[in-house]
Amino acid sequence: MNVAPKAGSRRIRLTVAYDGAPFAGWQSQAHGDSVQDAIERVLARIAKEPIRLHGAGRTDSGVHALGQVAHFDAPEDSKMTATDWLRALNGNLPPSIRILRSVKARADFHSRFSATGKIYRYDLWTAEVLPPHLAGRAWHMPHPLDPVALHDALQLFTGSHDFHGFTANRGTPAGDTVRQIHSIRLKQSGASLRITFEGEGFLYKMVRMLTGAGVRVAQGRAEINTLRDLLENPGRGRWTNVAPADGLYLVRVRY
Amino acid sequence: MNVAPKAGSRRIRLTVAYDGAPFAGWQSQAHGDSVQDAIERVLARIAKEPIRLHGAGRTDSGVHALGQVAHFDAPEDSKMTATDWLRALNGNLPPSIRILRSVKARADFHSRFSATGKIYRYDLWTAEVLPPHLAGRAWHMPHPLDPVALHDALQLFTGSHDFHGFTANRGTPAGDTVRQIHSIRLKQSGASLRITFEGEGFLYKMVRMLTGAGVRVAQGRAEINTLRDLLENPGRGRWTNVAPADGLYLVRVRY
Repeated sequence: MNVAPKAGSRRIRLTVAYDGAPFAGWQSQAHGDSVQDAIERVLARIAKEPIRLHGAGRTDSGVHALGQVAHFDAPEDSKMTATDWLRALNGNLPPSIRILRSVKARADFHSRFSATGKIYRYDLWTAEVLPPHLAGRAWHMPHPLDPVALHDALQLFTGSHDFHGFTANRGTPAGDTVRQIHSIRLKQSGASLRITFEGEGFLYKMVRMLTGAGVRVAQGRAEINTLRDLLENPGRGRWTNVAPADGLYLVRVRY
Repeated sequence: MNVAPKAGSRRIRLTVAYDGAPFAGWQSQAHGDSVQDAIERVLARIAKEPIRLHGAGRTDSGVHALGQVAHFDAPEDSKMTATDWLRALNGNLPPSIRILRSVKARADFHSRFSATGKIYRYDLWTAEVLPPHLAGRAWHMPHPLDPVALHDALQLFTGSHDFHGFTANRGTPAGDTVRQIHSIRLKQSGASLRITFEGEGFLYKMVRMLTGAGVRVAQGRAEINTLRDLLENPGRGRWTNVAPADGLYLVRVRY
């Protein structure tokens, strides 16, 4: 795979935040309603030629980002600085997508393949009424959730495991689905429960499936042993309760 | 003015939160796109008869509420408890409007005329890029703002003054525009500046005009003496810079 920019062109690394609610996820779609599509349209308008944008994480429809990372190669003849790109992009993007940072990157930098880790956050709201300003931005659980039980269930997943039973990617065989989770932290503040996952990488829908599993145990609707069995016997079953996209945030990509 | 409920009917007091962005303000509109319209439609559907809702504060288009208060009289033959109304309303309202609390009120309670004070908050974001999750929810100032100058300018307005020069209500003569502001507090956290106004009541667009005035002084684009002149000579001029609706929140109504 050729990840080096064309001679004379310049690789720009962007840190991108977005409200996922209005978009069909990160990745380019036929209907053009993804975050990648929205940014590529503006890049093309500025550069007057098509520019391909490469993102670090393919967030799903409705999933938010506070620190997605993406890169593109500026046209050879472009005189624009990284800061020029930031201003031109933010001046033309909808307010639901913002470029937080734009820097010149090394020619061999690749937002996805150079990444060494990611941080995701999952927000829950555990009271009868979801405040209107959290609509689309948290998973609403109308009843209190036992935070100790949730924490204990989630700790099962830290370390290196084959997460074949906790991904919606049915194409990847067991063995190729081993991932390391460095930490899973839980923070409670009133009705707000925030789970922060830090790891080397995550499989398709994995964070939402781990969250769904932890919540089911905390509700007394699943046994922690069911989770352990799926984790210890990859390829023999799959977890089915996926937490909704609303509460998920890609917080940071590490390099 | 008859504020007592019909005999046998029951007055219900609601605490209401809403994201102001999708609505044409609180007050009923011909097009039916106000918060009051949205709630009255659901009340009528539940009660199978028209029900008039009375709000404490007529928030403008785009203005948010964390604790608006409103009341209505349930039909005489209704068996619904206050909690039944809360659940039925939240079950039928869009997620951008939530009933936070519903209690039975005394027959002489009136959300607007019984109010003894209000708290409004105004949020500013003072950095080059407005995070996408704050779009429509804060006033974006791309440059840092001197918080000490802002605080000093705003303190001019605390106490009892004739705010004729700081309201967009052109129909009210000077003298009828005296209001008491108990406190104006400023809290800074990174790029976030939050101004909290507490007072007995506020005139039309007054909080947004006071915020606009304080910001102009903090930017060095207006003299504090200009503000003082308008305050000390009611009826002789008006402040013109109104802060946008995006950053304004009705936080609480006191009784």
